Amino acid sequence: MTQIHAGPLEGNRSPLHQSQSTDLPVSQSARLPIYQSTDLPDDLRWDDRGLIPAVVQDAATSKVLMVAWMNAEALRLTLATGETHFWSRSRGELWHKGATSGNTQRVTGVWADCDGDTLLVQVEPAGPACHTGAVSCFFRALG
Amino acid sequence: MTQIHAGPLEGNRSPLHQSQSTDLPVSQSARLPIYQSTDLPDDLRWDDRGLIPAVVQDAATSKVLMVAWMNAEALRLTLATGETHFWSRSRGELWHKGATSGNTQRVTGVWADCDGDTLLVQVEPAGPACHTGAVSCFFRALG
Repeated sequence: MTQIHAGPLEGNRSPLHQSQSTDLPVSQSARLPIYQSTDLPDDLRWDDRGLIPAVVQDAATSKVLMVAWMNAEALRLTLATGETHFWSRSRGELWHKGATSGNTQRVTGVWADCDGDTLLVQVEPAGPACHTGAVSCFFRALG
Repeated sequence: MTQIHAGPLEGNRSPLHQSQSTDLPVSQSARLPIYQSTDLPDDLRWDDRGLIPAVVQDAATSKVLMVAWMNAEALRLTLATGETHFWSRSRGELWHKGATSGNTQRVTGVWADCDGDTLLVQVEPAGPACHTGAVSCFFRALG
Protein backbone atom coordinates (compact mmCIF):
# COMPACT_ATOMS: atom_id res chain seq x y z
CA MET A 1 0.00 0.00 0.00
CA THR A 2 1.12 3.54 -0.66
CA GLN A 3 3.05 5.28 2.06
CA ILE A 4 1.60 8.74 1.85
CA HIS A 5 3.80 10.65 4.25
CA ALA A 6 7.33 9.54 3.57
CA GLY A 7 9.19 12.81 3.20
CA PRO A 8 12.33 13.33 5.24
CA LEU A 9 10.60 15.96 7.36
CA GLU A 10 8.25 13.30 8.71
CA GLY A 11 11.03 10.90 9.57
CA ASN A 12 10.87 11.01 13.34
CA ARG A 13 7.41 12.33 13.81
CA SER A 14 4.39 10.45 14.99
CA PRO A 15 1.95 9.73 12.17
CA LEU A 16 -0.53 11.90 14.02
CA HIS A 17 1.74 14.85 13.56
CA GLN A 18 2.35 14.30 9.88
CA SER A 19 1.13 16.83 7.38
CA GLN A 20 -2.47 16.49 6.44
CA SER A 21 -3.75 14.69 3.41
CA THR A 22 -5.89 16.82 1.15
CA ASP A 23 -8.54 14.24 0.34
CA LEU A 24 -10.73 14.76 3.40
CA PRO A 25 -13.05 17.67 4.13
CA VAL A 26 -11.60 20.60 6.03
CA SER A 27 -14.12 19.97 8.79
CA GLN A 28 -12.37 16.71 9.50
CA SER A 29 -8.81 17.64 8.76
CA ALA A 30 -9.03 20.66 11.02
CA ARG A 31 -9.83 18.55 14.06
CA LEU A 32 -6.99 16.07 14.18
CA PRO A 33 -4.27 15.37 11.65
CA ILE A 34 -5.23 12.67 9.21
CA TYR A 35 -4.24 9.18 10.18
CA GLN A 36 -4.35 6.68 7.36
CA SER A 37 -4.95 3.01 8.03
CA THR A 38 -1.47 2.35 6.73
CA ASP A 39 -0.10 4.77 9.29
CA LEU A 40 -1.22 2.87 12.39
CA PRO A 41 1.84 1.81 14.37
CA ASP A 42 2.81 -1.67 13.27
CA ASP A 43 3.77 -2.71 16.78
CA LEU A 44 0.29 -2.51 18.25
CA ARG A 45 -0.72 -5.96 19.41
CA TRP A 46 -4.26 -6.80 18.36
CA ASP A 47 -5.79 -9.88 19.94
CA ASP A 48 -6.90 -12.93 17.99
CA ARG A 49 -10.13 -11.13 17.12
CA GLY A 50 -8.20 -8.13 15.78
CA LEU A 51 -9.18 -6.01 18.79
CA ILE A 52 -7.39 -3.93 21.41
CA PRO A 53 -8.92 -2.66 24.66
CA ALA A 54 -9.19 1.11 25.02
CA VAL A 55 -9.46 2.81 28.40
CA VAL A 56 -11.34 6.09 28.07
CA GLN A 57 -10.45 8.77 30.59
CA ASP A 58 -11.91 12.25 31.06
CA ALA A 59 -9.07 14.64 30.19
CA ALA A 60 -10.33 17.29 32.61
CA THR A 61 -11.34 15.26 35.67
CA SER A 62 -9.07 12.21 35.07
CA LYS A 63 -12.05 9.99 35.84
CA VAL A 64 -11.93 6.63 34.10
CA LEU A 65 -15.15 6.63 32.10
CA MET A 66 -15.32 3.29 30.31
CA VAL A 67 -13.39 0.54 28.61
CA ALA A 68 -14.33 -0.55 25.11
CA TRP A 69 -12.65 -2.32 22.21
CA MET A 70 -11.25 -1.00 18.98
CA ASN A 71 -10.31 -2.73 15.78
CA ALA A 72 -7.91 -1.06 13.37
CA GLU A 73 -10.73 0.76 11.59
CA ALA A 74 -12.17 2.08 14.87
CA LEU A 75 -8.76 3.39 15.89
CA ARG A 76 -8.20 4.95 12.49
CA LEU A 77 -11.61 6.65 12.64
CA THR A 78 -10.97 7.80 16.20
CA LEU A 79 -7.70 9.42 15.17
CA ALA A 80 -9.01 10.79 11.87
CA THR A 81 -12.23 12.31 13.20
CA GLY A 82 -11.17 13.19 16.73
CA GLU A 83 -14.16 11.38 18.21
CA THR A 84 -14.09 7.94 19.77
CA HIS A 85 -15.09 4.95 17.67
CA PHE A 86 -15.17 1.38 18.91
CA TRP A 87 -15.94 -2.11 17.77
CA SER A 88 -19.09 -3.43 19.41
CA ARG A 89 -18.45 -7.07 20.21
CA SER A 90 -22.11 -7.70 20.99
CA ARG A 91 -23.45 -6.09 17.83
CA GLY A 92 -20.50 -6.98 15.63
CA GLU A 93 -20.24 -3.52 14.15
CA LEU A 94 -18.38 -0.25 14.30
CA TRP A 95 -19.77 2.09 16.90
CA HIS A 96 -19.37 5.85 16.85
CA LYS A 97 -19.80 6.69 20.51
CA GLY A 98 -22.61 9.20 20.92
CA ALA A 99 -23.93 8.86 17.36
CA THR A 100 -27.34 8.01 18.82
CA SER A 101 -27.22 9.52 22.32
CA GLY A 102 -25.31 12.67 21.45
CA ASN A 103 -22.79 11.81 24.12
CA THR A 104 -19.77 11.94 21.87
CA GLN A 105 -16.23 12.02 23.19
CA ARG A 106 -13.76 14.47 21.69
CA VAL A 107 -10.30 12.96 21.70
CA THR A 108 -7.45 14.98 23.19
CA GLY A 109 -4.83 12.24 23.21
CA VAL A 110 -4.21 8.56 22.59
CA TRP A 111 -1.46 6.48 24.15
CA ALA A 112 -0.33 2.89 23.72
CA ASP A 113 1.07 1.02 26.67
CA CYS A 114 4.59 -0.35 26.90
CA ASP A 115 3.82 -3.62 25.19
CA GLY A 116 1.35 -2.15 22.73
CA ASP A 117 -1.65 -4.25 23.69
CA THR A 118 -3.80 -1.57 25.35
CA LEU A 119 -4.76 2.00 24.53
CA LEU A 120 -5.52 4.96 26.75
CA VAL A 121 -7.79 7.56 25.17
CA GLN A 122 -8.25 10.91 26.88
CA VAL A 123 -11.41 12.74 25.95
CA GLU A 124 -13.67 15.68 26.55
CA PRO A 125 -17.08 13.99 26.86
CA ALA A 126 -20.24 15.72 25.65
CA GLY A 127 -22.28 13.79 28.22
CA PRO A 128 -22.35 10.65 30.34
CA ALA A 129 -20.21 7.77 29.13
CA CYS A 130 -22.53 5.07 30.46
CA HIS A 131 -25.71 3.86 28.82
CA THR A 132 -27.28 4.05 32.32
CA GLY A 133 -26.76 7.81 32.33
CA ALA A 134 -23.90 7.62 34.82
CA VAL A 135 -20.88 9.78 34.12
CA SER A 136 -18.65 6.69 34.33
CA CYS A 137 -19.45 3.04 33.75
CA PHE A 138 -17.48 2.23 36.92
CA PHE A 139 -20.05 2.97 39.60
CA ARG A 140 -20.34 -0.42 41.30
CA ALA A 141 -17.89 -0.76 44.18
CA LEU A 142 -16.53 -4.16 45.07
CA GLY A 143 -14.17 -2.85 47.68
CA MET B 1 -17.82 -24.76 49.06
CA THR B 2 -18.66 -23.31 52.43
CA GLN B 3 -20.42 -19.97 52.49
CA ILE B 4 -18.62 -18.35 55.37
CA HIS B 5 -20.47 -15.08 55.67
CA ALA B 6 -24.12 -15.92 55.38
CA GLY B 7 -25.59 -14.31 58.47
CA PRO B 8 -28.58 -12.02 58.11
CA LEU B 9 -26.48 -9.01 59.03
CA GLU B 10 -24.52 -9.53 55.85
CA GLY B 11 -27.57 -9.74 53.65
CA ASN B 12 -27.33 -6.50 51.73
CA ARG B 13 -23.72 -5.65 52.27
CA SER B 14 -20.92 -5.93 49.79
CA PRO B 15 -18.78 -8.98 50.52
CA LEU B 16 -15.89 -6.61 51.03
CA HIS B 17 -17.68 -5.08 53.95
CA GLN B 18 -18.54 -8.33 55.62
CA SER B 19 -17.08 -9.13 58.98
CA GLN B 20 -13.62 -10.50 58.87
CA SER B 21 -12.77 -14.16 59.00
CA THR B 22 -10.39 -15.11 61.80
CA ASP B 23 -8.30 -17.56 59.81
CA LEU B 24 -5.89 -15.08 58.27
CA PRO B 25 -3.10 -13.17 60.02
CA VAL B 26 -3.99 -9.82 61.50
CA SER B 27 -1.51 -8.21 59.16
CA GLN B 28 -3.72 -9.26 56.27
CA SER B 29 -7.14 -8.96 57.81
CA ALA B 30 -6.40 -5.46 59.02
CA ARG B 31 -5.83 -4.19 55.52
CA LEU B 32 -8.98 -5.13 53.68
CA PRO B 33 -11.92 -7.22 54.77
CA ILE B 34 -11.63 -10.84 53.79
CA TYR B 35 -13.11 -11.77 50.43
CA GLN B 36 -13.59 -15.48 49.88
CA SER B 37 -13.63 -16.98 46.39
CA THR B 38 -17.24 -17.89 46.93
CA ASP B 39 -18.00 -14.28 47.72
CA LEU B 40 -17.02 -12.83 44.34
CA PRO B 41 -20.03 -11.24 42.65
CA ASP B 42 -21.66 -13.81 40.43
CA ASP B 43 -22.47 -11.28 37.73
CA LEU B 44 -18.90 -10.53 36.78
CA ARG B 45 -18.38 -11.54 33.16
CA TRP B 46 -15.15 -13.45 32.71
CA ASP B 47 -14.01 -14.02 29.15
CA ASP B 48 -13.62 -17.44 27.56
CA ARG B 49 -10.22 -17.75 29.24
CA GLY B 50 -11.74 -16.96 32.65
CA LEU B 51 -10.15 -13.50 32.68
CA ILE B 52 -11.31 -9.93 33.16
CA PRO B 53 -9.30 -6.80 32.32
CA ALA B 54 -8.37 -4.56 35.24
CA VAL B 55 -7.51 -0.89 34.79
CA VAL B 56 -5.14 0.24 37.52
CA GLN B 57 -5.34 3.91 38.47
CA ASP B 58 -3.28 5.89 40.98
CA ALA B 59 -5.73 6.90 43.71
CA ALA B 60 -3.84 10.09 44.49
CA THR B 61 -2.90 11.40 41.04
CA SER B 62 -5.70 9.68 39.04
CA LYS B 63 -3.08 8.66 36.48
CA VAL B 64 -3.92 5.45 34.65
CA LEU B 65 -0.94 3.23 35.43
CA MET B 66 -1.50 -0.03 33.60
CA VAL B 67 -4.03 -2.57 32.41
CA ALA B 68 -3.60 -6.22 33.33
CA TRP B 69 -5.80 -9.30 33.57
CA MET B 70 -7.27 -11.06 36.58
CA ASN B 71 -8.74 -14.48 36.95
CA ALA B 72 -11.04 -15.20 39.91
CA GLU B 73 -8.14 -16.18 42.12
CA ALA B 74 -6.19 -13.01 41.30
CA LEU B 75 -9.23 -10.91 42.15
CA ARG B 76 -9.82 -12.83 45.37
CA LEU B 77 -6.16 -12.37 46.38
CA THR B 78 -6.29 -8.68 45.46
CA LEU B 79 -9.31 -8.14 47.66
CA ALA B 80 -8.10 -10.40 50.48
CA THR B 81 -4.55 -9.03 50.73
CA GLY B 82 -5.14 -5.44 49.64
CA GLU B 83 -2.37 -5.67 47.05
CA THR B 84 -2.88 -6.16 43.32
CA HIS B 85 -2.57 -9.66 41.89
CA PHE B 86 -3.01 -10.50 38.23
CA TRP B 87 -2.94 -13.43 35.87
CA SER B 88 0.07 -13.28 33.59
CA ARG B 89 -1.10 -14.43 30.18
CA SER B 90 2.48 -14.70 28.90
CA ARG B 91 3.77 -16.71 31.84
CA GLY B 92 0.52 -18.54 32.56
CA GLU B 93 0.72 -17.91 36.28
CA LEU B 94 -0.56 -15.75 39.10
CA TRP B 95 1.44 -12.58 39.49
CA HIS B 96 1.67 -10.58 42.70
CA LYS B 97 2.57 -7.15 41.36
CA GLY B 98 5.79 -5.98 43.00
CA ALA B 99 6.71 -9.33 44.51
CA THR B 100 10.04 -9.15 42.70
CA SER B 101 10.49 -5.43 42.06
CA GLY B 102 9.08 -4.17 45.34
CA ASN B 103 6.70 -1.95 43.38
CA THR B 104 3.55 -3.27 45.00
CA GLN B 105 0.21 -1.52 44.67
CA ARG B 106 -1.93 -1.07 47.78
CA VAL B 107 -5.59 -1.27 46.83
CA THR B 108 -7.90 1.51 47.97
CA GLY B 109 -10.94 0.52 45.91
CA VAL B 110 -12.23 -1.84 43.24
CA TRP B 111 -15.14 -1.16 40.91
CA ALA B 112 -16.89 -3.22 38.26
CA ASP B 113 -18.30 -1.51 35.21
CA CYS B 114 -21.97 -1.43 34.26
CA ASP B 115 -21.92 -4.72 32.40
CA GLY B 116 -19.48 -6.42 34.74
CA ASP B 117 -16.79 -7.22 32.19
CA THR B 118 -14.08 -4.79 33.31
CA LEU B 119 -12.62 -3.77 36.66
CA LEU B 120 -11.17 -0.48 37.84
CA VAL B 121 -8.65 -0.81 40.66
CA GLN B 122 -7.47 2.29 42.48
CA VAL B 123 -4.14 1.95 44.22
CA GLU B 124 -1.38 3.63 46.14
CA PRO B 125 1.71 2.43 44.24
CA ALA B 126 4.98 1.79 46.06
CA GLY B 127 6.90 2.57 42.86
CA PRO B 128 6.64 2.68 39.07
CA ALA B 129 3.95 0.52 37.52
CA CYS B 130 5.87 -0.19 34.34
CA HIS B 131 8.65 -2.71 33.94
CA THR B 132 10.54 0.02 32.04
CA GLY B 133 10.67 2.12 35.21
CA ALA B 134 8.06 4.56 33.97
CA VAL B 135 5.39 5.63 36.43
CA SER B 136 2.71 4.55 33.95
CA CYS B 137 2.82 2.01 31.14
CA PHE B 138 1.05 4.55 28.93
CA PHE B 139 3.94 6.74 27.88
CA ARG B 140 3.80 6.34 24.10
CA ALA B 141 1.61 8.96 22.45
CA LEU B 142 -0.22 8.11 19.26
CA GLY B 143 -2.05 11.39 19.13
